[in-house]
Amino acid sequence: MQQLLDTAENIRTMEIRGAGRIAEAASAALRDYVLNIKVTNIKDFNKKVDEAASILIQTRPTAVSLPNAVQLTKRHTATEVSEAREEILRNADKFLEQAGQALEKMGEIGAKRIRDGDVIMTHCNSHAALSVITTAFEQGKDISVIATESRPRRQGLITIKELNDHGIPTTLIVDSAVRYCMKDVDTVIVGADAITINGALVNKVGTSQLALAANEARKNLLCAAETFKFSPKTIHGDLIDIEERSPEEVIDTEVLAGMPNVKVKNPAFDITPAEYIDMIITEVGAFPPQMAYTIIKEHLGWEFTKMG
Amino acid sequence: MQQLLDTAENIRTMEIRGAGRIAEAASAALRDYVLNIKVTNIKDFNKKVDEAASILIQTRPTAVSLPNAVQLTKRHTATEVSEAREEILRNADKFLEQAGQALEKMGEIGAKRIRDGDVIMTHCNSHAALSVITTAFEQGKDISVIATESRPRRQGLITIKELNDHGIPTTLIVDSAVRYCMKDVDTVIVGADAITINGALVNKVGTSQLALAANEARKNLLCAAETFKFSPKTIHGDLIDIEERSPEEVIDTEVLAGMPNVKVKNPAFDITPAEYIDMIITEVGAFPPQMAYTIIKEHLGWEFTKMG
Amino acid sequence: MQQLLDTAENIRTMEIRGAGRIAEAASAALRDYVLNIKVTNIKDFNKKVDEAASILIQTRPTAVSLPNAVQLTKRHTATEVSEAREEILRNADKFLEQAGQALEKMGEIGAKRIRDGDVIMTHCNSHAALSVITTAFEQGKDISVIATESRPRRQGLITIKELNDHGIPTTLIVDSAVRYCMKDVDTVIVGADAITINGALVNKVGTSQLALAANEARKNLLCAAETFKFSPKTIHGDLIDIEERSPEEVIDTEVLAGMPNVKVKNPAFDITPAEYIDMIITEVGAFPPQMAYTIIKEHLGWEFTKMG
Amino acid sequence: MQQLLDTAENIRTMEIRGAGRIAEAASAALRDYVLNIKVTNIKDFNKKVDEAASILIQTRPTAVSLPNAVQLTKRHTATEVSEAREEILRNADKFLEQAGQALEKMGEIGAKRIRDGDVIMTHCNSHAALSVITTAFEQGKDISVIATESRPRRQGLITIKELNDHGIPTTLIVDSAVRYCMKDVDTVIVGADAITINGALVNKVGTSQLALAANEARKNLLCAAETFKFSPKTIHGDLIDIEERSPEEVIDTEVLAGMPNVKVKNPAFDITPAEYIDMIITEVGAFPPQMAYTIIKEHLGWEFTKMG
Amino acid sequence: MQQLLDTAENIRTMEIRGAGRIAEAASAALRDYVLNIKVTNIKDFNKKVDEAASILIQTRPTAVSLPNAVQLTKRHTATEVSEAREEILRNADKFLEQAGQALEKMGEIGAKRIRDGDVIMTHCNSHAALSVITTAFEQGKDISVIATESRPRRQGLITIKELNDHGIPTTLIVDSAVRYCMKDVDTVIVGADAITINGALVNKVGTSQLALAANEARKNLLCAAETFKFSPKTIHGDLIDIEERSPEEVIDTEVLAGMPNVKVKNPAFDITPAEYIDMIITEVGAFPPQMAYTIIKEHLGWEFTKMG
Amino acid sequence: MQQLLDTAENIRTMEIRGAGRIAEAASAALRDYVLNIKVTNIKDFNKKVDEAASILIQTRPTAVSLPNAVQLTKRHTATEVSEAREEILRNADKFLEQAGQALEKMGEIGAKRIRDGDVIMTHCNSHAALSVITTAFEQGKDISVIATESRPRRQGLITIKELNDHGIPTTLIVDSAVRYCMKDVDTVIVGADAITINGALVNKVGTSQLALAANEARKNLLCAAETFKFSPKTIHGDLIDIEERSPEEVIDTEVLAGMPNVKVKNPAFDITPAEYIDMIITEVGAFPPQMAYTIIKEHLGWEFTKMG
Repeated sequence: MQQLLDTAENIRTMEIRGAGRIAEAASAALRDYVLNIKVTNIKDFNKKVDEAASILIQTRPTAVSLPNAVQLTKRHTATEVSEAREEILRNADKFLEQAGQALEKMGEIGAKRIRDGDVIMTHCNSHAALSVITTAFEQGKDISVIATESRPRRQGLITIKELNDHGIPTTLIVDSAVRYCMKDVDTVIVGADAITINGALVNKVGTSQLALAANEARKNLLCAAETFKFSPKTIHGDLIDIEERSPEEVIDTEVLAGMPNVKVKNPAFDITPAEYIDMIITEVGAFPPQMAYTIIKEHLGWEFTKMG
Repeated sequence: MQQLLDTAENIRTMEIRGAGRIAEAASAALRDYVLNIKVTNIKDFNKKVDEAASILIQTRPTAVSLPNAVQLTKRHTATEVSEAREEILRNADKFLEQAGQALEKMGEIGAKRIRDGDVIMTHCNSHAALSVITTAFEQGKDISVIATESRPRRQGLITIKELNDHGIPTTLIVDSAVRYCMKDVDTVIVGADAITINGALVNKVGTSQLALAANEARKNLLCAAETFKFSPKTIHGDLIDIEERSPEEVIDTEVLAGMPNVKVKNPAFDITPAEYIDMIITEVGAFPPQMAYTIIKEHLGWEFTKMG
Repeated sequence: MQQLLDTAENIRTMEIRGAGRIAEAASAALRDYVLNIKVTNIKDFNKKVDEAASILIQTRPTAVSLPNAVQLTKRHTATEVSEAREEILRNADKFLEQAGQALEKMGEIGAKRIRDGDVIMTHCNSHAALSVITTAFEQGKDISVIATESRPRRQGLITIKELNDHGIPTTLIVDSAVRYCMKDVDTVIVGADAITINGALVNKVGTSQLALAANEARKNLLCAAETFKFSPKTIHGDLIDIEERSPEEVIDTEVLAGMPNVKVKNPAFDITPAEYIDMIITEVGAFPPQMAYTIIKEHLGWEFTKMG
Repeated sequence: MQQLLDTAENIRTMEIRGAGRIAEAASAALRDYVLNIKVTNIKDFNKKVDEAASILIQTRPTAVSLPNAVQLTKRHTATEVSEAREEILRNADKFLEQAGQALEKMGEIGAKRIRDGDVIMTHCNSHAALSVITTAFEQGKDISVIATESRPRRQGLITIKELNDHGIPTTLIVDSAVRYCMKDVDTVIVGADAITINGALVNKVGTSQLALAANEARKNLLCAAETFKFSPKTIHGDLIDIEERSPEEVIDTEVLAGMPNVKVKNPAFDITPAEYIDMIITEVGAFPPQMAYTIIKEHLGWEFTKMG
Repeated sequence: MQQLLDTAENIRTMEIRGAGRIAEAASAALRDYVLNIKVTNIKDFNKKVDEAASILIQTRPTAVSLPNAVQLTKRHTATEVSEAREEILRNADKFLEQAGQALEKMGEIGAKRIRDGDVIMTHCNSHAALSVITTAFEQGKDISVIATESRPRRQGLITIKELNDHGIPTTLIVDSAVRYCMKDVDTVIVGADAITINGALVNKVGTSQLALAANEARKNLLCAAETFKFSPKTIHGDLIDIEERSPEEVIDTEVLAGMPNVKVKNPAFDITPAEYIDMIITEVGAFPPQMAYTIIKEHLGWEFTKMG
Repeated sequence: MQQLLDTAENIRTMEIRGAGRIAEAASAALRDYVLNIKVTNIKDFNKKVDEAASILIQTRPTAVSLPNAVQLTKRHTATEVSEAREEILRNADKFLEQAGQALEKMGEIGAKRIRDGDVIMTHCNSHAALSVITTAFEQGKDISVIATESRPRRQGLITIKELNDHGIPTTLIVDSAVRYCMKDVDTVIVGADAITINGALVNKVGTSQLALAANEARKNLLCAAETFKFSPKTIHGDLIDIEERSPEEVIDTEVLAGMPNVKVKNPAFDITPAEYIDMIITEVGAFPPQMAYTIIKEHLGWEFTKMG
């Protein structure tokens, strides 16, 4: 149990961060914990598993990958403890294996949507989006990328560094130049922080402006997202919280202090409606955003017991 | 003549900069020059005026306010030198007076479009837009402003300083947060670098994204622009050049040098189509953008001799 | 003067009502007053005319036809009282003649846009719109009309009565059924209370919903409006006030009194943006809404002195 | 059997009315009938159940909740009469329990989509929509409502009475003022009469105008609908009939009789396309309208045997 | 095996052509081959079946009906050769029966969407679309058809011939007249060559222009497509190839040879996005295009094993 | 007079055809007639001119260039016959000179809107559009053209011939492939048969489909049109007739005769709304379509006497 509590603590303190790494740590922690449960009664076993799952999930209540990883790991249909343990181990191994391959799979699937000669626009720094781009480039397609700066934290500078290292011709622009440059773009590719039941995309602030400008110019927008980014609780009507970050990311705090009538609004994410998204590329296939429920049910294994 | 050449040089070297100040300097220079023309023959007089006008106009071939100021100043219908000189002096004085009052007039007209309680979004740092906002505030209207940072040069920081000094509640956002914040906005107000014959607005890069997001949410967009911002040559099909500025405004040049596959695209302006603009507030009235020709003809005094 | 004051009083007390009748009464009153001005000095004469004009205009500060009628009547270029008087008499006679023929002219022009077999939707009770419809019908075109009830005052009942008396097949619908019936409609025709400088139409509340539904289904919307409905002051940025009418038009006041948490919002008009209007049919021709400035300047005779 | 025939008669004569009450009565009647079937052969049993089901369904051929309730009640997989009876009893109890809780569940799920400070527009008088609104209000959210009159039957007056009794600040408007008031609205919530396979909403006439105006202004539209409102037969291409109601709801019949060229069109419902609906709130979760098939299959239990 | 190879050859050489006939031939060939497999070991049996399936599929790598037919035929869950053979025979018989009835079923389902008095526009020559039209006509509905010429191969001439023979009033237009005639149309019905995972329709070039014009005028567009037209591989991101056909279909080759600067682009198909399609009529029901995944999974029987 | 009657006859019989040639012939005929009018009284002179003008105009009542040419030629302000004659001669010469230069002028102005590297789509065979294209090409811009076949008369074959002779890389497509190819296009350029008061474009059938597809993809559409293509009578509400041409242009008449239920609809033109047109390039400048009235008044010289 101590190990699991340590992992929980590391997730809570953000020592372990990033949707994928959180998911993998939680699945592994649950697996290791289950290996050491001593009870022989299945009811007691299940209770302990549920308690452990609950501890993990509560460390970051808004992280969408966490409950998905825990749910995929803990579910079993066994009536004996030994079988249940086996099933959970298999679940964890399968989840960890799939999560480990997800970037590669998304790259393979998404790269098929990139044509030779395409100019691709991307925003912020998404491993999933970059996997699609680099896979297409390594297939020999003659592509180039327009990357946004992505203020306030300028993650675009990491993106152009990575693209440069791959040898991919890249153009850096400020976020305000997105619409100006859209006429030269063939496809927009972004990542995801979460996807809701109605196919809306929660991602780095500014994403919805790329999407709007792409839609205006009828350019395709692809979102690359592991299945664990789909949010089951949005089925129950829950809204996804948009984190407000510190003003100092935007302006020097001393300068701000000198202007009593001025405050800063610094949302981390924004929401892109499904109608602006052509495809969501997951590690198990490409889907229209309206199919979010099917992903959640078929892949993430959530049972909505009142459904029929 | 030396004085005029000095002014021309100052415009060329950007010692005199800003559409308004360029226009005023050129009109005054032409007026002073005309005062000292010694010829007595009207034909010679006109030739000298045209030469001087030409010198001024060629200093900044893409500045739209320059030919407008020169044209409004130099035109006359006299057949005697003394009358012509008188007329040009009157033209210059009238132009300078109107230009001097333009900010105030735009403030008065535009403020009528602001309602008590409005939240106004603005971009970059436009004196004309700020004149509308501060006039409305000084009329006692309870308004607040959302100002964009306006990368790469962050002119938004100047804007929030000015708004703070007026005591107007202001919120600073990064350029990527425009669409996210649009639902709280009542009216968008921006300035103009130039307006074309079909009512398109050339302004600081990012303006067209505010306009697109405002249009999507059906919020009004007002453009505040002195009449000398309307471009007569666009009637002849001319496109307006979009200045490309230095990469170092966007990224540290040393960092950039280390990434051979990366370049920077840094357009100074973008183009907002007329359909996204509700009104253009000039110092002589508020017009729909489609009336650009009428402004150019009736106010700026351009004769399109083949017309009729 | 007493006569003019009487007319002014009758306009203020709404004994004289309706944009056309107000306009005609004001023009006639000014004409009659001018006939009896005794002064011989043109300056004194002009001062008296301006005073009388001002009295008339202030009776209904929001009626757009009133200042237009007064302006068209009073303007003159004479330097002698007798000539000025003559000119004003001619102005008044011309204005009254044109106003008297406006319905007929709009009918003639607008009927050309109606094709045999058309189904026309109209809203509220507009004489101008009905003139177009009945003219087309009397030309032998096989048309029919869908008329809205136009709550709260149900002016649609007057409209269907008038259409019935003309023998025109008519269908009455509730206001909520506009979109449902739009698929059967060929053209929507409405009247106008006022038209702004950017071609927006101020008309009976609900008009903008017909326009929106027509635009969605790509059906034409014609607005029939005398030129005196165009609002000159909107050039100066003025907004047009939307009258809030009494709750008792909507709900029994006693019933309302029993519900302390409920109030009624009863706007008389709404605003239809220019982009939803195909044509404005005036007595002098059919125009796209963006030409409002041209109507105001060329027909209504307003001088915008600062315009060049 | 007599009891079942009585219930059938009460549904046919509209003594039992309202989608929910019809559904519950039919399920209970079938359950009670099944309790008393005397046959011992499963084939005979099934035949009798099918006959009874058929009688119930035919009472109101266009009511969408009726076949759904009957189907959910009668389906079983048993091969013995006693088991089949048990299963049907369980089905009925489950259906009645869920139907009884549906309003509350929709309230809980939908209320999560309402934010503090929201202004909500609603149309007609929908218990489902009101459940969402009152639940949000009782959670302490500071909300207010704009309610339409909903001519011709003015069900809006019932709605404002109910909202007033809950203490919710409410504004009554005529149906024509929907677009005028939309700029002040945050969310539109309506109920449903039926939902088709492609997510179109059949609801009180005027609903599609709220939806169109909300879409134009990019405000969210939520539909609150029990799962039994989803129409299985639309999978087979069936159109949903729009009931035409009596003219006297719209106009005094004597007045109408005096106008031989006038008739009345009084549709009870209209159809809102899926693209104007953000979410459908059911008692089992919130879904995008495109998921209608999934609801029908997973919750309503219809088998489309040719599917695979 | 020889028989199967013959069929494969006939498909490759296009002796057997048309999505339906290819599908039926492949299913029958596989069935006949399976009847004659001599092996007794299930593993060997499966290997042989897979080999045969692979041969068939590779004959026309881009034909979407081919892998669907083969997959629906070959899948089985048996562990004994005899059972496996039985299952495959049943699969083939079921597939052939359903394919044989598909036109009739689509006709029945689609005809419900046609109303009395409808004007229907169709493009090219689709048996599925014609089945809907003729079924509606034979039900006694008073309909008429506008058929496009469908250059370059002018399949519209076949369509009008067939419609004429049915006695259906038909109007032939050139492809450029589609938008001009759209105002008279009630519904557009087209066939399909393939449908992708996100509901996009691949069909005869020009289809997307009908769809665009229909969407502009808010007329419904129905697509009639057998389920075997849905493309499973698009789930994996695959794009559908658009065949480029010979220039001589468009212009006389000798004429073309005389113009060295001119070439011909002659795409056989184009792609209509899901947002322009109201319904896809299949032989098992009518679905919104976003449900493509459900069709592929539930009807075509593809297992996406990584899906949960 | 005989000469004028001959010209009139040649216009009527279409020996003289094409908007430009008709206009020039009519102006010249009127000029020559005026030279020979013998009367000395100005009233008689005017009457004769009006009679002659009337004869010319009535030869082709729907040709828009004819009344424009006649009006521009005949108008004068003289009170003496000799002066009037002089003025008319000058009018005719000026008109003929301008008409002669119009193609070149449109080429110059329009070519400024073409950028190096542009792909241009054009429809039918417009000399004005081709002048823009060839001027840009001769300026050294590296452009290419996509030309539609333009069924039924296949004027596209003439267009590609002309482009080939200029050495401009050209691609021929069928009319149905317009939307498919639009993603590769930068600018669409078409000619005009007539332009209405609200800026709608009447041109070869299919033009509005290019415009719709260009608008969907946000590509610019330029219309190149001599000012005499603007229709003054549309101010009076007149609709422009759309000529229906012979079926035999579309289908072999014998084939058609064999199909009694089939007819052909063969409209020569369609109508493109102003909102789909970015610019109208005339010989006197580039204008937004909403400025049609200004062109008609300022250039074509029509007096709308009731206008103020």
